[in-house]
Amino acid sequence: MKIEVLKDITSANDAIAAQNRQTLDRNKTLAINLMSSPGAGKTSLILQTIARLKNEFKLAVIEGDVASKVDADKIDAQGIPVVQINVGASCSLEAQMVTPALNKLPLDNTDLLIIENVGNLICPAEFALGEHRKVVIASTPEGDDKPTKYPLMFTEADAVIINKLDLLPHLEFDINSFRKTVEGLNPKVKIFEVSCKTGAGLDAWCSWISTELKKTRG
Amino acid sequence: MKIEVLKDITSANDAIAAQNRQTLDRNKTLAINLMSSPGAGKTSLILQTIARLKNEFKLAVIEGDVASKVDADKIDAQGIPVVQINVGASCSLEAQMVTPALNKLPLDNTDLLIIENVGNLICPAEFALGEHRKVVIASTPEGDDKPTKYPLMFTEADAVIINKLDLLPHLEFDINSFRKTVEGLNPKVKIFEVSCKTGAGLDAWCSWISTELKKTRG
Repeated sequence: MKIEVLKDITSANDAIAAQNRQTLDRNKTLAINLMSSPGAGKTSLILQTIARLKNEFKLAVIEGDVASKVDADKIDAQGIPVVQINVGASCSLEAQMVTPALNKLPLDNTDLLIIENVGNLICPAEFALGEHRKVVIASTPEGDDKPTKYPLMFTEADAVIINKLDLLPHLEFDINSFRKTVEGLNPKVKIFEVSCKTGAGLDAWCSWISTELKKTRG
Repeated sequence: MKIEVLKDITSANDAIAAQNRQTLDRNKTLAINLMSSPGAGKTSLILQTIARLKNEFKLAVIEGDVASKVDADKIDAQGIPVVQINVGASCSLEAQMVTPALNKLPLDNTDLLIIENVGNLICPAEFALGEHRKVVIASTPEGDDKPTKYPLMFTEADAVIINKLDLLPHLEFDINSFRKTVEGLNPKVKIFEVSCKTGAGLDAWCSWISTELKKTRG
């Protein structure tokens, strides 16, 4: 019974996600769906990405949160177009929430749209938004067993970012074990090791985005 | 439409949670529903609590995860009765998943049952399991803004544990700001500051559990 309900919700969502994708493609905007646990560093990564790419590309951001607009305020302070979505009782952004946000953004003048999903390793993997790439951040203090415990999100990701590298000396996080588990689930995935605090590894991440953008814009 | 479906699911869940509660009360077992983001330290806290309380009280554990049984194996290695529940496509334990687990445990010989929920700051706040106390762990690397972004779980908690105190020197986590936000949402909440790595603060936490257990057992 409940599974049937979930299936209905998912296929209705997928139909709207396909429309969002058409809107993005018509505008030649590449959209990244950025997902992670709460506090893994999604907003920090977006701010660092803005700092490195804003002179080369036109950026925009959608912020998804259960409540508050603290993240949207940080993006707005960088002069980047941003729309906040508060999902209330939902545990993820859904395609129908993203549609009106797309309409509020200057997509015809946007190369890259980063959609920061709600902090959650489960639900966001189940709702397509219309994005072209799925990116998951895993932060070192969460432990290296997260891909084993939450496999769907890591299986579907185009790129996985290991953040908070600067904390490694204080933790028991085995990077090789983490990489092996992720590559076992998802052999084609790109993995980046970064610290949004020190800036380590962020050039490689931004270079990957640039390449993906150039592919999209032909 | 979707909200109606969610309401139906929630009231069916609450009815089963009330039955679970009766089963626990009949056995004079105090049940704690332990919730947090992925990797905040739920299993580490349980292991530290077992080490401190196992000579004084009879303990049992239910482990909730999307996939795997790595946490249950760690509890089992301590000689404590444990049942693993894999929730699959769900984003939380639900009362009907807990009922068969209760039947597998020696509740007539259990003072304290700790139910480790799925790592998620959203869904577990919406599903009562029959527990007597709700406890939320927030770990310092997640940042001090989590109660603002995920208010429901912090509003409903009987106790909030700030874990990973040992990492504070390497982070920008404002404990006073965190405490003020939580107390603003939930003036009666107990807040404990702990490190499951160094053991700091765990005696105060275990002393609170002992007091709650003695209240239950009259």
